[in-house]
This record gives sequence, structure tokens and C-alpha cells, in this order.
Amino acid sequence: MGQIEGLSQRQAGQIGNETSGLSGGGDSNRNPIRLGLLGAGTVGSEVARLLTEQRDELEQRIGRPVEISKIACRHPENVSASWIDTSLLTTDTEYVATHSDIVVELIGGLEPARTLVLNALNSGASVVTANKALLAKYGPEIYRTAEENGVDIYFEAAVGGAIPLIRPLRESLAGDKVTSVLGILNGTTNYILDEMTTKGLDFEVALKDAQDKGYAEADPTGDVEGEDAANKAAIVASLAFHTPVSIDDVAMEGITLITADDIALATAEGKVIKLLAVVANAENGVSARVYPALIPNDHPLASVHGSFNAAFVHAQAADDLMLYGRGAGGAPTASAVMGDIVTVARHIVQGSTGQQISVYGHLPKAPLSSSHAAFAVRFCVCDRPGILAAISKTFADHGVSINGINQDLKPTPHNPGYSGELQTLRVVTHQCSEITLRETVDQVCKFDFVIGKPSILREM
Amino acid sequence: MGQIEGLSQRQAGQIGNETSGLSGGGDSNRNPIRLGLLGAGTVGSEVARLLTEQRDELEQRIGRPVEISKIACRHPENVSASWIDTSLLTTDTEYVATHSDIVVELIGGLEPARTLVLNALNSGASVVTANKALLAKYGPEIYRTAEENGVDIYFEAAVGGAIPLIRPLRESLAGDKVTSVLGILNGTTNYILDEMTTKGLDFEVALKDAQDKGYAEADPTGDVEGEDAANKAAIVASLAFHTPVSIDDVAMEGITLITADDIALATAEGKVIKLLAVVANAENGVSARVYPALIPNDHPLASVHGSFNAAFVHAQAADDLMLYGRGAGGAPTASAVMGDIVTVARHIVQGSTGQQISVYGHLPKAPLSSSHAAFAVRFCVCDRPGILAAISKTFADHGVSINGINQDLKPTPHNPGYSGELQTLRVVTHQCSEITLRETVDQVCKFDFVIGKPSILREM
Repeated sequence: MGQIEGLSQRQAGQIGNETSGLSGGGDSNRNPIRLGLLGAGTVGSEVARLLTEQRDELEQRIGRPVEISKIACRHPENVSASWIDTSLLTTDTEYVATHSDIVVELIGGLEPARTLVLNALNSGASVVTANKALLAKYGPEIYRTAEENGVDIYFEAAVGGAIPLIRPLRESLAGDKVTSVLGILNGTTNYILDEMTTKGLDFEVALKDAQDKGYAEADPTGDVEGEDAANKAAIVASLAFHTPVSIDDVAMEGITLITADDIALATAEGKVIKLLAVVANAENGVSARVYPALIPNDHPLASVHGSFNAAFVHAQAADDLMLYGRGAGGAPTASAVMGDIVTVARHIVQGSTGQQISVYGHLPKAPLSSSHAAFAVRFCVCDRPGILAAISKTFADHGVSINGINQDLKPTPHNPGYSGELQTLRVVTHQCSEITLRETVDQVCKFDFVIGKPSILREM
Repeated sequence: MGQIEGLSQRQAGQIGNETSGLSGGGDSNRNPIRLGLLGAGTVGSEVARLLTEQRDELEQRIGRPVEISKIACRHPENVSASWIDTSLLTTDTEYVATHSDIVVELIGGLEPARTLVLNALNSGASVVTANKALLAKYGPEIYRTAEENGVDIYFEAAVGGAIPLIRPLRESLAGDKVTSVLGILNGTTNYILDEMTTKGLDFEVALKDAQDKGYAEADPTGDVEGEDAANKAAIVASLAFHTPVSIDDVAMEGITLITADDIALATAEGKVIKLLAVVANAENGVSARVYPALIPNDHPLASVHGSFNAAFVHAQAADDLMLYGRGAGGAPTASAVMGDIVTVARHIVQGSTGQQISVYGHLPKAPLSSSHAAFAVRFCVCDRPGILAAISKTFADHGVSINGINQDLKPTPHNPGYSGELQTLRVVTHQCSEITLRETVDQVCKFDFVIGKPSILREM
């Protein structure tokens, strides 16, 4: 018998309590709910602050007080937030994971987070986490472990910070059929692309600027290569399509090859470049991808600026929805974590759990060969005659139909590998097979007049 | 002992079943959940279609099948949807309300909806409703009745159609402090204002056009006078601030006095006019209002067009959020209803309920005297000397500081009450007390050179 139909461990355990509470009038169910915090960084200490400051109000909303029982972190001596009772601090993460009613995991990364979360769930605790990498890799294992133990796993903060996205996918749209989600889910790249657009900066300059301002990390790889957005795409796809999608299933391209020229050409066409996480459920199966795309200015996603995030959801009955807000930062992330804590705590009071994450489906993964789009490919080429003819012929030979070519840009400056005049040449295609497009581009890159790597943008 | 802490009626009832299911392996909990539908109009028949078409998938998500047991409507003979089994149709609403596990109320209006919903809750059924008028008037009574009976009341579709707004307020932001919600929550007025803006139409013409196209009802009063939005504001305020706010607490102004001149002046200033539902929790207490406002073009709400709806939420930790989507229509509304049905059905399978609507607070209602804003007041005046001086003096006498005056508009044509030349004169104030502003405007209207009623717009 599956867990859904049967009684969960917690329900079985709770019933005794609740029933004796009812019949004997005992006050066992007024005991505080013990919350163990794993991690006392920006988000962790903000969560601790909100739990402390809103203690009375939360008790009213939940029906029982929620009390921080322990806070585990690597360096308790560095925790300085005035509202944190230092006697709660410990380095013993394993103890906290297995001696709490609710475990809030804010450590991040794969290990020890995975082991701690699984141990917490197996100990009968519900888990609230903001850990996107963990869920993108081990989501199905974690969701199953929660269900087997009759406890909750909630993770609104893992995707889009304070934006209610996970809950709508998990619950509001549970009776509808989501066909696609287009998300701007990485604030760092959105900030960099915004700076490139408004200030005409090249990628490296904008990145340096973002690092100086603290919007990008010293090692920005995870953001600019698309991995962060890909993690979120995997989580969203699993939820939206009820089928397990892992980070390993997500095809990703980052924004490192995008230049000021790409931006200028987009602007001239009334478009902006955004790094999109796109998950879709179409005839050929489920797909999850991250790529830079050209978005028309009048699309709602085009006006998502700076470090804001947004998800544009299409569902069969609901039609278009957009959910927009702060995708990162201590306070917004803490807000999402707090919402999950309240939900999970109420379930504990009720002896129930929320909707389990149903990844029961086994929809096929769409093959790359099914991917079709219109593309804009920008090459950097030496300035000499015959280049246009050679490139056009290569596209024609592959059957990729060209919609337009721009070559009237000013010469591209500063290329360390070449001392002559360089020029930007950009080919915009009609809808074509992505595989064929990439073969075509590889072929073009074999010409000795092509310098460096081309940028490939997809039309939305 | 309160219901929150104790076992709900349903939990107490379910435990026996579930336990025997575990120990004896009986299949009682595989029985279909009986869903009674009240209303078979556009939304009702769409819900019936989705329940039928997605039957197997819903059973997987819920853990038990959901079966339409009865559909009550006034004229069963008029129901023609091919997917509706006519043997389920009845006119006996009371029977359906009291003989179902889930009652979906899509009749609308105050009575008999209120009685049916209360009877359903008291019979132990959970209720899903899209009835904004009902909840705006009797929300606290209905929420309390649900809580007392240990059953669910869900109503995502009552505000903003398919937009997940109720659930984020009820759950995602439950650990945060919502300070304001600014909503475009009425599609009809948004469509009319959009048409006035893009086509330069006057209100009456745009309304007629909307009626011809089916976007406005034959009697448009409820939409254009702001009552529909006010109902939604009351529901949102109650949820956001955990304090009972009724439709009777909502101050409302509609859009009937807005002219093409108002729109042209707004456009010239880089602004749009939108009918806003604004709820706020400030120092002076809780307020809920509906009024036409001037919104700068670069605000996310400015680009909410046509029949789309959006809510711009500010919470202390989450900062700004915007939730956007289809605010009306059969399919989008049905999507929201379906999401609620799945949630409520899962709770039935689990023997639990969702977060009850906690309107435990008793925050004071902000007095009108605490309302301050900058206003733009447009008068229609006879074209003769001394008018500007007289109006300016009246504003000065009341201590209302003027930020600017426009009077260079072309003469206003066609005024049935006056045969001479008319002119538009518009006064933009600095921040001032709303009461003083209205006294000032009343005073100005006593001048014999003022024709008709002025329009009063608030700067956002």
C-alpha cells in the first residue's frame, strides 16, 4: 500500500497525542515546535530574526509556538547577530538534523546537505530548504524520502527567492496542465545583461563591475555559465510536469560569449537579451534548457530588470501567468523560508502533511533533434572580400534558411589573436533544427577568416 | 479548547477509516471523493470538463478518484456541454450542498449562496468557491464556520481569476508582514481604460464598445463604479492583514467621470490611468480603497493591459512581488477552482485541512482623515476671465498647495447643460489631506462657472 493512502508515520504518531489531548485535556500539543537551523549566514540569521520578532504572531497563526532549538554552523564564534542566543549555537549539524521537528537547511551545496536532509526526514522531521543544487540533483530521492516518512519537504526559496513559484506549481496549478515556464531565474546574469544594455559595456567589463558591487561572486562560473539557472530549471520542470528532471537533463548555455555588439543589434530591433530558463512539455517530451534569448520589448519578461526574477508560466486553462519579485538576498529568501516554516508547522499541529511532490510521471525527455528555433549567430570575421558568399553558401548547403544578415557594424576592436581589421557579421535564420544550425555554425567556424567563438542567440 | 489545537470533526472521523485501512487493508479510502457542483454556467461546465478529462491524472495526484456526484443548476434543460452526464443534473441545490465531500459553489451573489455554503460547511463538506461578493460580505462568518467544522474553504478564483494571489497571501507570505497590495483586479474597467488610452475614446463610447464585445455587462454598474474591485479588496485586506475587512469598509470611486481629456493629460505626463484596489496596513490602521490612479509608465502595473489582472504586493521581508495573469474568463477561473479542488481533495485523503483563514486580528480601520495623497482634479468650466484666480484662491484658502495647472486643452465639446464655450482646467496638488481636498473641490463646484462633476485622480 502506498503512503498516500495509508497513514503516515507522523499521523500515526500524532493521533495518540491529539486524541489524548482531546479526551484527557492534556496540553502536550501546546509544546513548542522545535526548529533546528542548519546554517547561520545571511539567510539563516534573517530567519532567526523573523522567528524571534514575530514569535507571538506566528504562534497565533500556527496554533503552537515555534522555538529555535539549535543553530548549527561551522564557526559559532563568528555569529554576531544580536537576536541570536549564542547558547543555541553548535557545530554538531547531525544532532540538529535528527533532533528537531522542523529542520531548516541553509547550508547549500550537495554534501553534507544531502545526508543531513535525508537523515532529518528519516528521523521524522519536516525539512524546509533553499538548496537548489541539492534538489536539482537529488530531488526525487528527497521527495520520496519525505513521502515515505509522512513528513514535509518545502523549498519555495530554492527558486526565485521570495517569488511564490513553487507553491503555485505544486498546488494552484495542480488541476491544470502546465505546458511551459520561461524564467529569468538568475539575478547575477540579469544584472550583468542589464548593465551591458544600459551602459553599452562588454561582458567582461560588466562582470567586473558586478563583482566589485557584490552582485557576482569572485568565481562567477555557476552564474554566468547558466548552471544556477539550470538547477532551478530542473526543479521547476520536475514540479510542473510531475516527472523527474535532474540537472543532468538540462542543456545549458551561458552568457559569456555575448558582446556589446549583440546587445546593440538587439536594441536596434526592439529586443533585449535575457538568460532564460525554459522548461516545456510538448509532443516530443519534456525539455529543460537554459540559453540567452532575444525577447521583444513588449513581452512582460523584457521589463524584468536588475536582480529581479520572474517566471512566465503557460498552462492550458490558466493561460499566461507571470510571477515577479526579488530572486535573491537575505530578507526576500528568508520571507520564502518563513512561509514554508509556517505551512510545515501548521501541518505538524494538524498531524498532516502538504501535497507531496508527485514526480510519478515518466514523460520522455525531448531529444535535441526536436529542438527548432530561429537563431541569431554573430561571427567575428577578418575584413576581406568573399566572406559573405562563403557563409551564405554554408548555411544554404545545410538547408538553413537565412532571414537577414547584418554586417554594417563598426569594426570589432581589440582581438588578441589577430592584428588586422575585424568585423562583426550576424546571420539571423528562419526556424530551423538546432542540431543543423550548430553543425552549420561549426562548419563556418572552420573558415580561417572566422576569429574566436560566435555567439548564438535564440529568438523567443 | 479551540479547533486549531483539537482534532477537527473530519480528522476524528477519518482516523478510524485510515487506521482500519492500514491494519485491515480495507479499501474504504479508495472510494471516490464526491464533488457536488453548484452552478453549470461557463466556469461550472469548464470545471466539469477538466474533472472528466483529467480524471486519471487527478487520481494520481490526489490518491483517490474525484467524482462529480451531482450538478445543481436552475435550468438543467439548458445544459448542453457534451461532457456533462445529464443524469447528474438537478435543481435541488440544498441536497447537493449537504450530500457531498466537496461543494464547489459557482452560483455567485449573496443568497442563496451564503446559506448553501454555510450548510455545506456545517454538513462536514469542504467548500471551493469563486464568489467574491459572498466572501467580501460574509467572509469572517464563513471562515469561522469552516474552522469550527474542521473543513476547508478555498477561493483562489474569487480574486484575480487564475492568478495565484490568495494562496501566496494565505501561505507563502504567512511568515512575513504584508504592508500593501495594489491590484488591478477588474478586467472590464482595465479594458475600457485601455481602449480610452489607445483610441482616445470617451468613457461612454469605450463602455458601449466593451458591451458590444461582451467585455462589459448590460448593467455595468458593479464594474465601472468599483464595487467588483472593492469586493476583491475586502477579501485581500482580510487575508493580508489577518483582520476582518468587509465590503462595507471599502471606500470606492469608479471610472465613470474619467474623460478622454484625463487620459490625454496622463499620457502627456508619461502616465496611465488604472482603477486600483489598494489595501494597506500603516500606522493609522488598515485601509481598503478602490480609486482611479495615475501610474507612471515605468511601474510594472502600467503595462497590465486589456483584461489581464495583476497584484503588486509589498511585504517587509519579501519586498516587491507582482502576480499577473488572466483575471476572468471560464478557463482561467476554472484553473483556479481546479487547483483548490485538488488541494481540498488531498486534505480529505489525509484527514487534514489547509491553513485556516486567520482573521484573528483586530487592527483598527484607518480613518479617512489619515488619507493623504497628491491629486489631479479636472474641472469643466465656462471660458471666461477670472476663473483661474477664483479656483487658485479656493485651493489656497483651504491650505491645499498647487503643484501645477493645465488649461491649454482644446474646448470641451458637447455639453448638454451649457451652450457656450467650455474648457478643461486641471489642478495638480502636492500631497494633501484627502478630506481637505474634497472640501476644496466641493467649494469650487459651487462656482457657477463649473459645469458637471470634476474627475479626481490620485497620483500613485
